Amino acid sequence: MKEVKIGILGFGTVGAGVVEGILKNGELMAQRSGILPIIGKIADLDIESDRGVEVDASLLTTDALSVINDSDIDVIVELVGGVTVAKEFVLRALRNGKPVVTANKALLAEAGRELFEASVKSGAGLYFEASVAGGIPVLRALRDGLVGNRIQCMYGILNGTCNYILTRMEREGLPFDEILADAQKLGYAETPPDLDIDGIDTAHKTVILASMAYGAPVPMSVVASTGIRGLSGEEIANADALGYRIKLLSIIKEGAGKIELSVEPALVPKTHMIALVNDSFNAVFVKGDIVGDTMYYGRGAGRLPTASAVIGDIMEAAVDRLHGVGSPVGITMMLQRDTLEYCAAEEIEKRCYIRLPQGDLAAAQDVLATQGIGIASVEESISVILTQPAREAAFVSAAAELGDAVRLRIEDVP
Amino acid sequence: MKEVKIGILGFGTVGAGVVEGILKNGELMAQRSGILPIIGKIADLDIESDRGVEVDASLLTTDALSVINDSDIDVIVELVGGVTVAKEFVLRALRNGKPVVTANKALLAEAGRELFEASVKSGAGLYFEASVAGGIPVLRALRDGLVGNRIQCMYGILNGTCNYILTRMEREGLPFDEILADAQKLGYAETPPDLDIDGIDTAHKTVILASMAYGAPVPMSVVASTGIRGLSGEEIANADALGYRIKLLSIIKEGAGKIELSVEPALVPKTHMIALVNDSFNAVFVKGDIVGDTMYYGRGAGRLPTASAVIGDIMEAAVDRLHGVGSPVGITMMLQRDTLEYCAAEEIEKRCYIRLPQGDLAAAQDVLATQGIGIASVEESISVILTQPAREAAFVSAAAELGDAVRLRIEDVP
Repeated sequence: MKEVKIGILGFGTVGAGVVEGILKNGELMAQRSGILPIIGKIADLDIESDRGVEVDASLLTTDALSVINDSDIDVIVELVGGVTVAKEFVLRALRNGKPVVTANKALLAEAGRELFEASVKSGAGLYFEASVAGGIPVLRALRDGLVGNRIQCMYGILNGTCNYILTRMEREGLPFDEILADAQKLGYAETPPDLDIDGIDTAHKTVILASMAYGAPVPMSVVASTGIRGLSGEEIANADALGYRIKLLSIIKEGAGKIELSVEPALVPKTHMIALVNDSFNAVFVKGDIVGDTMYYGRGAGRLPTASAVIGDIMEAAVDRLHGVGSPVGITMMLQRDTLEYCAAEEIEKRCYIRLPQGDLAAAQDVLATQGIGIASVEESISVILTQPAREAAFVSAAAELGDAVRLRIEDVP
Repeated sequence: MKEVKIGILGFGTVGAGVVEGILKNGELMAQRSGILPIIGKIADLDIESDRGVEVDASLLTTDALSVINDSDIDVIVELVGGVTVAKEFVLRALRNGKPVVTANKALLAEAGRELFEASVKSGAGLYFEASVAGGIPVLRALRDGLVGNRIQCMYGILNGTCNYILTRMEREGLPFDEILADAQKLGYAETPPDLDIDGIDTAHKTVILASMAYGAPVPMSVVASTGIRGLSGEEIANADALGYRIKLLSIIKEGAGKIELSVEPALVPKTHMIALVNDSFNAVFVKGDIVGDTMYYGRGAGRLPTASAVIGDIMEAAVDRLHGVGSPVGITMMLQRDTLEYCAAEEIEKRCYIRLPQGDLAAAQDVLATQGIGIASVEESISVILTQPAREAAFVSAAAELGDAVRLRIEDVP
């Protein structure tokens, strides 16, 4: 039986989950793939805390570099998080010729090109399925199963915390702040919650998905990004009455040679599969020009779901190593071209939901008309206008004259 | 640029779709993978008909063996269908050392072991993503992304024709025969429709999914299989009133070391993701012990969706060939053990919906009690009893005394 010796950097929630998964199902994985995964070393600054898994003390070290440099270790698993130390570790491992598995979306979104190029240069693979949508193997779907498809659009629910909050706001009719506080108490939201609820985490994942689909590392700066902070229950109730649900949506589209990327709370038709994704679940809806509509659904975070993806990557790294495959197709796919053309935020065409707390619908219609924005319907009872598609620039100009209007995107997911 | 030369056997609907996909996106695939797919030869008995794609006449031949034996051809794509000629072609190609891509679920379900063993023996890979759920890369998910998971259960909607019929029966309240006739007219159902509506096609796919999940070729004979023929609109309306939808469900479970496999129309809770899969769409819900709940959704049939999966497999075969990988992990996963233990049909524990057209609910409750079957609820207005879980054997014994009662499984998908 062949073996793969794993060096884990970071023994936190996911690190402990990876160890648990391998202890539990390592033999099964060996039966399936012919390669037995073995925990070789685990590095963390804290090697005293109980992680809920049994690990021989001799495997633990506080010295991450000793793990990276250990010639006995075949694959490095980076679960340190953050973009400074983690980046140093990943680069060092790759340059040492050691394949790296990482779940670090921030690192990939901020420094992807540098890492991918280091992987190609050294011929050591970099595997990152766990960085997007946790346990859902969606990056593999894009890379392998859908490789024959031009990706026309993707819609992602990529942040479990936000989806959990939105689902509870809708079900219980309670305000954002109250649900957020409760989610923090229950461990569904971090303190501070900014990375999640301001859409930054979703933007990181959007960047990675788009890079895979379109073949170049996408810079974070091109993602027009808004979170769900302060979203009012009134909007959720109104959306419901109009046949929509509000989701924090990652929107990725290609059209006329340009890529459009946004993260924002959007109204999606209640009957669409993506609108049916509730609680802390994630999903990615992918439309390819050959396959048509597909969707991938599951847990986007958490100890074991994330570990499932990390373990899948470890086994892939091991199989690649066995076959002498260096930097795998996943990396070359991210480096097909130097750059992509992006749609500027103001150019993005969208429909909008506009609520006028003061209720002056007639005046608002005039303002919209002046900006060339068509009206799809006017809902007087709730002081809401649903528009036809128009450019963001027109909506921004209109907003200046609409006072305290609330505006949300409507995405009639195709 | 490296190339992969493809020999296609069978120039029908899917064959033409594969050609269309490669002509359209071949360059894109080459950018992504470094390998350019090229149509080398196409064999079909009929090389005169217009297939809706432009192909140089010199590529066409009526002699499939000449394609299999052509040393210029790198990968054989078997789209002949059926289990006799197709089997001969696949075996011959494998024995020639040529990797084979196939969409032929009947062949894999009937003769899987022989084919997998031929692949291992010759070191030529066999790739069959398109055989289950068309364009949805669910076999890859089981093989790669979820490799670290023991599969606890799977629920599949695997036949688009049946799901289309059930969806329309529910929406339009029309009887089975009428919708079936219309589906045939619209090309959504074949004539005769037996393979689809009697559950055989779903059973083929169930066998392949279970083989991948549990590591041995599963014989068709162990799948307890019932179709949707003659399902009454009354059942669909009653299910709806009780909070359920009726789906032709592939049910795969592992418990106490035994595998349970069934195909039958079952009541599933309306709120579950799998119940939300409508029209001709397919989906597979997979619960793993590490990842938790996941679902994969898309088009399960049709020219281009199936071609998408075939093309993904062609590119994988090409990459494997480039790296000198012979029979890939997907094959060894199907041959982990000689046999599995199966739950006999009579042993399967399930809840049931029982409708008594004659309406004698009290007598029926006595009959069920005699068989040790508990009652969950009695719906007098519609003459329906919902039971507690009991063994199929008990239900069969009860049925003998219940006259013309209609019985359907209730699956409270976990």
